[in-house]
Amino acid sequence: MVIVMTPEATQQDVDAVVDLVATAGGDAFVSRGVNRTIIGLVGDIAQFGTLNIGSLPGVADVIRVSTPYKLVSRENHPERSTVRVGGVPIGPDTVTLIAGPCAVETPEQTLGAARMAIAAGATLLRGGAFKPRTSPYAFQGLGEAGLRILAEVREETGLPIVTEVVDAREVDLVASYADMLQVGTRNMQNFALLRAVGAAGRPVMLKRGMNATIEEWLMAAEYIAQRGNLDIVLCERGIRTFETATRNTLDISAVPVVQRLSHLPVIVDPSHSGGHRDLVLPLTRSAIAAGADGVIIDVHPHPEQALCDGPQALVDGDLGELARVMRDFPPLLDRVAATALVPVP
Amino acid sequence: MVIVMTPEATQQDVDAVVDLVATAGGDAFVSRGVNRTIIGLVGDIAQFGTLNIGSLPGVADVIRVSTPYKLVSRENHPERSTVRVGGVPIGPDTVTLIAGPCAVETPEQTLGAARMAIAAGATLLRGGAFKPRTSPYAFQGLGEAGLRILAEVREETGLPIVTEVVDAREVDLVASYADMLQVGTRNMQNFALLRAVGAAGRPVMLKRGMNATIEEWLMAAEYIAQRGNLDIVLCERGIRTFETATRNTLDISAVPVVQRLSHLPVIVDPSHSGGHRDLVLPLTRSAIAAGADGVIIDVHPHPEQALCDGPQALVDGDLGELARVMRDFPPLLDRVAATALVPVP
Amino acid sequence: MVIVMTPEATQQDVDAVVDLVATAGGDAFVSRGVNRTIIGLVGDIAQFGTLNIGSLPGVADVIRVSTPYKLVSRENHPERSTVRVGGVPIGPDTVTLIAGPCAVETPEQTLGAARMAIAAGATLLRGGAFKPRTSPYAFQGLGEAGLRILAEVREETGLPIVTEVVDAREVDLVASYADMLQVGTRNMQNFALLRAVGAAGRPVMLKRGMNATIEEWLMAAEYIAQRGNLDIVLCERGIRTFETATRNTLDISAVPVVQRLSHLPVIVDPSHSGGHRDLVLPLTRSAIAAGADGVIIDVHPHPEQALCDGPQALVDGDLGELARVMRDFPPLLDRVAATALVPVP
Amino acid sequence: MVIVMTPEATQQDVDAVVDLVATAGGDAFVSRGVNRTIIGLVGDIAQFGTLNIGSLPGVADVIRVSTPYKLVSRENHPERSTVRVGGVPIGPDTVTLIAGPCAVETPEQTLGAARMAIAAGATLLRGGAFKPRTSPYAFQGLGEAGLRILAEVREETGLPIVTEVVDAREVDLVASYADMLQVGTRNMQNFALLRAVGAAGRPVMLKRGMNATIEEWLMAAEYIAQRGNLDIVLCERGIRTFETATRNTLDISAVPVVQRLSHLPVIVDPSHSGGHRDLVLPLTRSAIAAGADGVIIDVHPHPEQALCDGPQALVDGDLGELARVMRDFPPLLDRVAATALVPVP
Repeated sequence: MVIVMTPEATQQDVDAVVDLVATAGGDAFVSRGVNRTIIGLVGDIAQFGTLNIGSLPGVADVIRVSTPYKLVSRENHPERSTVRVGGVPIGPDTVTLIAGPCAVETPEQTLGAARMAIAAGATLLRGGAFKPRTSPYAFQGLGEAGLRILAEVREETGLPIVTEVVDAREVDLVASYADMLQVGTRNMQNFALLRAVGAAGRPVMLKRGMNATIEEWLMAAEYIAQRGNLDIVLCERGIRTFETATRNTLDISAVPVVQRLSHLPVIVDPSHSGGHRDLVLPLTRSAIAAGADGVIIDVHPHPEQALCDGPQALVDGDLGELARVMRDFPPLLDRVAATALVPVP
Repeated sequence: MVIVMTPEATQQDVDAVVDLVATAGGDAFVSRGVNRTIIGLVGDIAQFGTLNIGSLPGVADVIRVSTPYKLVSRENHPERSTVRVGGVPIGPDTVTLIAGPCAVETPEQTLGAARMAIAAGATLLRGGAFKPRTSPYAFQGLGEAGLRILAEVREETGLPIVTEVVDAREVDLVASYADMLQVGTRNMQNFALLRAVGAAGRPVMLKRGMNATIEEWLMAAEYIAQRGNLDIVLCERGIRTFETATRNTLDISAVPVVQRLSHLPVIVDPSHSGGHRDLVLPLTRSAIAAGADGVIIDVHPHPEQALCDGPQALVDGDLGELARVMRDFPPLLDRVAATALVPVP
Repeated sequence: MVIVMTPEATQQDVDAVVDLVATAGGDAFVSRGVNRTIIGLVGDIAQFGTLNIGSLPGVADVIRVSTPYKLVSRENHPERSTVRVGGVPIGPDTVTLIAGPCAVETPEQTLGAARMAIAAGATLLRGGAFKPRTSPYAFQGLGEAGLRILAEVREETGLPIVTEVVDAREVDLVASYADMLQVGTRNMQNFALLRAVGAAGRPVMLKRGMNATIEEWLMAAEYIAQRGNLDIVLCERGIRTFETATRNTLDISAVPVVQRLSHLPVIVDPSHSGGHRDLVLPLTRSAIAAGADGVIIDVHPHPEQALCDGPQALVDGDLGELARVMRDFPPLLDRVAATALVPVP
Repeated sequence: MVIVMTPEATQQDVDAVVDLVATAGGDAFVSRGVNRTIIGLVGDIAQFGTLNIGSLPGVADVIRVSTPYKLVSRENHPERSTVRVGGVPIGPDTVTLIAGPCAVETPEQTLGAARMAIAAGATLLRGGAFKPRTSPYAFQGLGEAGLRILAEVREETGLPIVTEVVDAREVDLVASYADMLQVGTRNMQNFALLRAVGAAGRPVMLKRGMNATIEEWLMAAEYIAQRGNLDIVLCERGIRTFETATRNTLDISAVPVVQRLSHLPVIVDPSHSGGHRDLVLPLTRSAIAAGADGVIIDVHPHPEQALCDGPQALVDGDLGELARVMRDFPPLLDRVAATALVPVP
């Protein structure tokens, strides 16, 4: 059971809830978010039901949910949510295309990729300035210089920015540039980072851990939600299996499964799951058809020179077909491409 | 390297190839198929190239392919194949719906399921008479009595039959009733069975082993092809991973990957991969959008009474939407539903 | 619930059980084994308990077990079993070494490998005459000629023979030569083969499917047991995971887990799980220390010429250390090497 | 190629290396560690070989290693390393037992667990003050209060402390109490944390990510090593597979594989891999027999009251057998239990 306090609730109000729960032999975990305090109760749920907690001063909501995740569960929030990123919707009525380079390398490369993104129908720009790499000897991203490039390209194109943050100490820095913070697959259970992005006042894209069950993924989202931030978009990006023909195995079933369990939007990354340019378009079509609320795709003006993941980036010749997919498939699912709603300069 | 002999080739012709290869230090594996003999060469391929084997009497084709599978490879067969089952095409121009009960239980249930299949746009009927079950105490299928029911329902509805065979000793029996033989996931590397269906003179649907790599799957198809039978349809039905939210993890990427590697058609089983009724429609849309040449779906008039896999069978209320998907999605991929081609009585 | 009939039970006795169960709304699956008939009951178990089935004529035993596998469960058979193969025990008091070539190639190679096996302390000879291979172009074994070689080497050395059978139609042939029938990993759910070896009157070594859960493995053993054959030895040989540094991932925990769930002996194959010569000795020590009732190891006099799996075969230089392991480790687990009990000529 | 600078190397020396590499078209990644600077070179390795970098001022060592990990590779460091934690060795000559509670809960519980650890032969105390938990509503550890308890118990018993750090911002705090820093499975690719512990001046235990390949694990160790800290102990703790009978699948083969690839010590965690008390002793024996340099085991005086992972903690009745294993098994591998070397008060 989770108690959501009103924004005006006092410390005394919070203490009163904790004390009442203690009298029933329960434990209360208090989590102070940006806007409000959330109290998770552990113990004999049936007993708590008799306590009439909802009538205490400062209590906004008492959430009784049978799943281990509470705030992100669809159980007491049947309507699916829409998250807005710099005005662009990601949610049940639209299909949103996020595109851009895997890593920000130069202003020219980033601007070129942004223009490719727009040509394909994208309304959000992706691009990594901080890159988590398996090898310490691989290119680790430009850091703040990369964030500045992204901001310039946003200025030039109007595209809001989605970019990854890998260190809780850098969340404020990244949030000062980004419209949406991305938590990558390797950090899905970096709980310090989850708490930090939960408090950063920016929408968050939470990629699924490559070894995470759907339940663990939703629990990770709960860490963010618990800090008072429900502007979370989940991103399926492939899981690790025995198959080596693809970089990862895109778990396409996760899209409808997550939408049944959670009210949060869920998008798909066909670039990192497949790991091959040839697979991006079929997997994009597949994701939209499965009901994904968006896709996030690597594009690069010169993938053969890319410092990161060149083999999976789309090139100029692919953009026409991607634009066609974005135009023709969403209507079959009673949706529109987000681009149709948001005029891009 | 693989040598395909002409149908008229004599034993002497075959011996001549084997002897010539031996002089170059190679080994020749002779496989006598229904219509023709196929000789696989192992050893120093470069050396074989100098032997001029193609000019020997009785040699129809010399296949030089770099992949470990030869006859099913797309490398020297760039055009994708169409397999016909009782006149119904499965191939690159169509999307074919195969539907029916997981297991044949009674004449009424089977006929009811067949009528559901037709209502949804199916042109082939699936139904198991021999069921491989994890538990020896579970329902194992009606055996030949089930095959007779299928034949009666074919008589009544005109739908050609796809049914599983689980024992090499029963291939002739099953082939005497079935229009297409199915090899199930647990038997994908039952090489005795593969050889037997390769010689049975019927198209074969080869389901992917739940733990098989795509390469192993194509090698299993090669066992069938080597017996002279290239009427093989591959069926992706989910692989086993750590995720337990779904029965198996549908490897949707396998569709475009297989189509790049092999000329054989590939279809998807959204019922067995997801294991939940709710997932069948999203996964069907997803499969067609990924480029699958067809789908195979469980339907049951009374799934709550089903002796096998009831929770994943579609019910009457789902058929309208399935029919809509079969009508609206194929055109977006420049295909037609197979139903549009084949009038069903 | 499972009913075991006496060897003398008549058809009339069996029918009486089936009829009685039907009156309680249950289903009875009758399985006629070599020595006795076994009847599996499906339905309302609590109801069956009131039927007093145990007092019917011809009923030897009524097995109430909560696990889905019944005859192989330890639940009503707390004492762990010992299986004897040509007089050699495999069970809780011993550690049995089975060794030999992966594939029988020539009389000299097989005899050489058998002598290596003896030098290392082996009391059973392994060797494949029928080889299930991923590629149809790979060496498939010598067939019956290989069985004859094994029989000659048994004559010469006194070692009983363990050899694989891959086709239900060949079980009688293989059983006429072999002391123990092996069912390989790819055939663990080849139910036709399981039933056939269950009726063959020989002990069976059942390798774990590389993708099989422990429960599925025990269910496969139940198929054999149901035919009246409880002389089953389970063999853990590695499962398929994402890790590619080893051929398979040896699931060493399966040894104690299986021993808690089943009374059957369980051995380990360190050669096929690791796939590298260097790993065989560490994994052998590890298996014995985990409590395995034996190990099965590839040895080859000239592995560089082996037609199958040469890289994992032990060579002469490894035998001394293997013999030392077989001598020193079992006593730490209050066991003796089986070799100490069975004088080998 | 990796250049290790001498502790006395100046900025000018470092710049000279970088400039020289640039003239050959290569890129140099400079990493300033606590004691020395390390420069990773990316580009045409053959070309670098002609540059005679080793003769530049300030260059201590030029490491040419074919594996992607350099400093932790065994390739140019054939002797296996010993890491000392508060005087206790972990390395090739010993078997070290680390034991204690999963989580520090109270002073009494921690001291009780420490006494259990000593009784079993442990020479290092484990215990978590910062606990990464799947659910934000689960007990997250006592934080610094837990560290103080650990320090008091060290005072009382003499056992050096191993404890987890989960946030780069807390590394200094945890290092001020701990003798060894533990990086947990979920943080194996938290590169910010790896860099921070690499600079903390304490030995590090790096647990394998539950989905990490052995190569990725060694790359993660390289991140730590690159900061100048080579006091790293690797800990195999089970990987995630399809099998659900155990919490994770202990990859016992990883022990000999890692020891072949890296000079770092490797230990095993039988508690978290198995997840059941019954499996801890068999897996401990198995790990030592496979050649592990140590084991880390959960013990708890009252596991039924544990706030974390009670079902896997050993209890008083298990300690005698664990002590026997620690005494009898290491000599069979020409080792001694670390306890025999380090008198514990």
